[in-house]
Amino acid sequence: MDVRMAKIGIVGGTGYTGVELLRLLAGHPEAELAVITSRAEAGRPVADLFPNLRGQVDLRFTEPDPAALAGCDLVFFATPNGTAMKLVPELLAAGVRVVDLAADFRLRDAAAWERWYGMPHACPELLEEAVYGLPELNREAVRGARLVANPGCYPTAVTLGFLPLVERGMADLDGLVADCKSGVSGAGRGANVGTLMGECGESFKAYAVPGHRHLPEIRQNLSAVSGANVGVTFVPHLVPMIRGIHATLYARVSGGDDLQALFEDRYRAEPFVDVMPAGSHPETRSVRGVNQCRIALHRPQGDGVVVILSVIDNLVKGAAGQAVQNMNLMLGCPEDAGLGGVGLLP
Amino acid sequence: MDVRMAKIGIVGGTGYTGVELLRLLAGHPEAELAVITSRAEAGRPVADLFPNLRGQVDLRFTEPDPAALAGCDLVFFATPNGTAMKLVPELLAAGVRVVDLAADFRLRDAAAWERWYGMPHACPELLEEAVYGLPELNREAVRGARLVANPGCYPTAVTLGFLPLVERGMADLDGLVADCKSGVSGAGRGANVGTLMGECGESFKAYAVPGHRHLPEIRQNLSAVSGANVGVTFVPHLVPMIRGIHATLYARVSGGDDLQALFEDRYRAEPFVDVMPAGSHPETRSVRGVNQCRIALHRPQGDGVVVILSVIDNLVKGAAGQAVQNMNLMLGCPEDAGLGGVGLLP
Amino acid sequence: MDVRMAKIGIVGGTGYTGVELLRLLAGHPEAELAVITSRAEAGRPVADLFPNLRGQVDLRFTEPDPAALAGCDLVFFATPNGTAMKLVPELLAAGVRVVDLAADFRLRDAAAWERWYGMPHACPELLEEAVYGLPELNREAVRGARLVANPGCYPTAVTLGFLPLVERGMADLDGLVADCKSGVSGAGRGANVGTLMGECGESFKAYAVPGHRHLPEIRQNLSAVSGANVGVTFVPHLVPMIRGIHATLYARVSGGDDLQALFEDRYRAEPFVDVMPAGSHPETRSVRGVNQCRIALHRPQGDGVVVILSVIDNLVKGAAGQAVQNMNLMLGCPEDAGLGGVGLLP
Amino acid sequence: MDVRMAKIGIVGGTGYTGVELLRLLAGHPEAELAVITSRAEAGRPVADLFPNLRGQVDLRFTEPDPAALAGCDLVFFATPNGTAMKLVPELLAAGVRVVDLAADFRLRDAAAWERWYGMPHACPELLEEAVYGLPELNREAVRGARLVANPGCYPTAVTLGFLPLVERGMADLDGLVADCKSGVSGAGRGANVGTLMGECGESFKAYAVPGHRHLPEIRQNLSAVSGANVGVTFVPHLVPMIRGIHATLYARVSGGDDLQALFEDRYRAEPFVDVMPAGSHPETRSVRGVNQCRIALHRPQGDGVVVILSVIDNLVKGAAGQAVQNMNLMLGCPEDAGLGGVGLLP
Repeated sequence: MDVRMAKIGIVGGTGYTGVELLRLLAGHPEAELAVITSRAEAGRPVADLFPNLRGQVDLRFTEPDPAALAGCDLVFFATPNGTAMKLVPELLAAGVRVVDLAADFRLRDAAAWERWYGMPHACPELLEEAVYGLPELNREAVRGARLVANPGCYPTAVTLGFLPLVERGMADLDGLVADCKSGVSGAGRGANVGTLMGECGESFKAYAVPGHRHLPEIRQNLSAVSGANVGVTFVPHLVPMIRGIHATLYARVSGGDDLQALFEDRYRAEPFVDVMPAGSHPETRSVRGVNQCRIALHRPQGDGVVVILSVIDNLVKGAAGQAVQNMNLMLGCPEDAGLGGVGLLP
Repeated sequence: MDVRMAKIGIVGGTGYTGVELLRLLAGHPEAELAVITSRAEAGRPVADLFPNLRGQVDLRFTEPDPAALAGCDLVFFATPNGTAMKLVPELLAAGVRVVDLAADFRLRDAAAWERWYGMPHACPELLEEAVYGLPELNREAVRGARLVANPGCYPTAVTLGFLPLVERGMADLDGLVADCKSGVSGAGRGANVGTLMGECGESFKAYAVPGHRHLPEIRQNLSAVSGANVGVTFVPHLVPMIRGIHATLYARVSGGDDLQALFEDRYRAEPFVDVMPAGSHPETRSVRGVNQCRIALHRPQGDGVVVILSVIDNLVKGAAGQAVQNMNLMLGCPEDAGLGGVGLLP
Repeated sequence: MDVRMAKIGIVGGTGYTGVELLRLLAGHPEAELAVITSRAEAGRPVADLFPNLRGQVDLRFTEPDPAALAGCDLVFFATPNGTAMKLVPELLAAGVRVVDLAADFRLRDAAAWERWYGMPHACPELLEEAVYGLPELNREAVRGARLVANPGCYPTAVTLGFLPLVERGMADLDGLVADCKSGVSGAGRGANVGTLMGECGESFKAYAVPGHRHLPEIRQNLSAVSGANVGVTFVPHLVPMIRGIHATLYARVSGGDDLQALFEDRYRAEPFVDVMPAGSHPETRSVRGVNQCRIALHRPQGDGVVVILSVIDNLVKGAAGQAVQNMNLMLGCPEDAGLGGVGLLP
Repeated sequence: MDVRMAKIGIVGGTGYTGVELLRLLAGHPEAELAVITSRAEAGRPVADLFPNLRGQVDLRFTEPDPAALAGCDLVFFATPNGTAMKLVPELLAAGVRVVDLAADFRLRDAAAWERWYGMPHACPELLEEAVYGLPELNREAVRGARLVANPGCYPTAVTLGFLPLVERGMADLDGLVADCKSGVSGAGRGANVGTLMGECGESFKAYAVPGHRHLPEIRQNLSAVSGANVGVTFVPHLVPMIRGIHATLYARVSGGDDLQALFEDRYRAEPFVDVMPAGSHPETRSVRGVNQCRIALHRPQGDGVVVILSVIDNLVKGAAGQAVQNMNLMLGCPEDAGLGGVGLLP
């Protein structure tokens, strides 16, 4: 094969989005992992930390080194919020393209960002340039972007679920409800009492009801599409499972339009959004490990209220898979390169 | 102790509500289990089927025998829908009081019952007499009842959550949303592909979105309280855990009333409803194994929308515990007799 | 009731053994919790940290205060290893009796203790006085003890499983195998990557195969009973569940003795050990939340090898329940006071 | 690509091994699924039953039709025990090669087979011809086989774990212990009370201790390798997780041989067996979804006892993956065709 393999770097590869990126890149036909950094694990073979990668990834973690990263075609940041913004300007200046899987570049409004994330932004001037990497919304912009803000997991499921309705102005924008449920991997791989199996196993709860950082991102997306302010009540919940997000979306609609057809038309050409037959109940496991969003529609109360069910794997379409999809667009690879495979069921 | 122990029968004790009744009755100070029937397991010691009862319950399952049941003070039906209605008239005639944990007597409208349950009702004339056994709503009626319809698990969590708002006419009755999540024990102990661990473990889904049998029951409760038709969108989901229901309830309210105080006042005297401090996120595990409903309130979008979080153990306050609470009222025992204990956490 | 309630203190009540002690003491007829300490949570209501205790426990955590503890009849230590040994001498001097749920006083050999626990022992002179609190082995000594070392969870399940065989000299003491499996609550409530649900859920592994701290404790128990050195291979495993230990024990035996009868005789009078009928397979859930050890015997290879299955709830008979059992013996209460109840199934 | 795609049939594709075969074949470069049969689901699109296959598999289930199957190059049987033996002779006569994922051809001794499986064997004359499809043991024979008996899941993990020791005569063959743990998918997708999540979730138990059908298969394998009768005590357990087998193997060995080197040498050339560094603890999740066996060795008691830890995904190396590996050998494809990919972690 005479494809030149793109050289890829990962900053901060010890969390769940990191190991998922590694899994996907290990099978990518046109990209090769050149550098993966971690201060805490520098020197350790990646496959020692993540034994599923034994025989697949030979690299070791290294200390973050701007020079090494500058030699990459594209760098992913799989770091905590607030890290990428400190390194990105230098990398962009060196001609490296960047996909940030954290939240540093997701909001266009710097003041809002600082309020929700509780820290000053290190490079607010890049917020306008950064492209919000939801390809179903911004595909062309992603292709040409130097810097892509990879969407949050909840905003991906919620935005894709509401999108056709909101684009067509068919929903009452003042009373949207997004009741969302996530597996625990969404909370990351950091030591934390709340996500111990002893704490979150065999139990279910809502969290962050007064306000979650993904709310302004959801509002930004839907408001941009509709051109109006959108009122959405967003309640996230923690599910005692590892992977998966299920968004149950409620909207008041008027008229008896054929919403099933609307959704099917909107997503017909999308490789990673699957509108299921009317009456379906998508299960999160049907997308486990794959870059898919599956959507189903119901109108249980007659015409007045539409219920949209939207599922993704939070680590794939909600994080690393979408990041690879963005990378493919940015590098001119087929959009689905490295993103084949079938969901692991059961 | 000179308390005469009430003689209790259970018809159909091989499911999850049955074994939970057995657990609760084993520790009840004023009731003693006299008969437990099961066609399939007749002759088998109860503690052989349910080893947690070894050393606690010496009884064997017996064939259903009206004469033996007629010797009881009170009989619980823990049978599939459609069974109790065939036996209840005879028992009532014999002076036995009855608590039905199935759905046979939950709806007052026989036609609606037959439509939702897909069979003719065997004794529609009893539907009016039957008392809907939610003590927080119908305590006095339960005390005097011959026949109590024990509420469904979802209706218990949803009704208790909406009740103070609806009683006071403070919610827009046309746009209630009840997004509910249940552990798998709610589906019962019958052999069934859908609740195999291989099918429902590590996954999350909505089900029965077009219409679930608990919807008319919820509507009946809220409409009775409000004196008006109530429009509620009810979406149940299956959680990969065994016990617990979490209802996330959404209502539009007008005005800035102190809903926290309203709820606290409404439930202050209720032994089995706990209004948590403002800002709380109740976990289902906090009520595991106990007859409690814990409720918390949020208004994340300012005054317009109230989010009510309501959790119960579906097998206790959602089934067997509530049945014992009803029994206590019917027999004149302290309402909390046999219902002490602390939730099993973790 | 004219029973004087014993005043009980708990040092370090923020972990899983702590909350389990609280649950059991909340229902104890002759003991009342007077003090519970935690440096990290001082001032916080206990029921705020553990909402299952709302309405059941009114206490707040306090800073550890020797004077307050000295006013108790008995103090439990539910602290990390190495804490109790620093405070126990002072409490004993003040006439307080102590049950340590950690490992500080479990080994009689100070040098061995220091090797396995990696720190110097603060009061090795107490190791001989301390009574190893397995009532089935040491009941009379526990009654009179000032200081009880509450056994480890694995040693409880393993010792009770092998005990009848080893007491009677019927097993080849050189080739015992204890293949043990524990739920994740055994690892405690501390923040820890390894027991995140994302790490230990949906997976199974052995750990500490080269050597686990419970090995010397198991050997000490079996050697004391047999009067000889015992060679046991002990392999612990982590099960993706919260509560429960299952020990699968292998011993070579000679002759065709009726081991079922031997075990039944040995444990007939024991309130908290249940020898199941021959051919049984005890489930950990059958003892969830209760102070029971259930044991079953098999000889699948004819007479040569006996397989003993022994299950406990690691937080109850393996920790807090056994501690209350010891407390009951020390205070002269009925041995089963506060230890009733039925395992929560499902 | 000018590879001729081999035409593949699957008989009985509605269970877990069936859907896993479908997942693996969907990504196979040299095989294409031509027929999949199911009496119960005939006419239904495969992707309707298994939504993870939407967009990946267009086939519908069909009634079993010998003529259609006779047009295949190779047919997999993913049927209950006792089905394949009725159809295989006809297919072999038609020149079709067969891999049976059930147990019909695993034992060479027809009398033993009939005793363990409780039915007469329909074609005992094929038992000698059938090749036991463990490539690490029988690679050359598999290449030339018309009929391959795909090994059981436990026998795969146990045999690969003991193999190097037994081949070299280094273990005491009279006292092997195989303490094995399996996820619930091993019990299949049939409706069954015992594998309801409400029954097997949050609990752990041994089962079939008196005798499991995989025991004669394990003994046959080890006896064939050693040339002597092997005494092995095999105890299977059910783990509350979906996929994965962990075998903990105990053998007495004499002498201080370098077993780590022995194992590494034995498996160096094997693409699907990974001997981990000394001291490792393989997790089942490290092989989730992939055709790998990972093995680690310990000698915790000095030289006398070796503990071998062996993990597989029961549905992949323990079933469908191994079946595809056998197919690859039989059809002359690269042994790892369609078997790439990285374990899904977390």
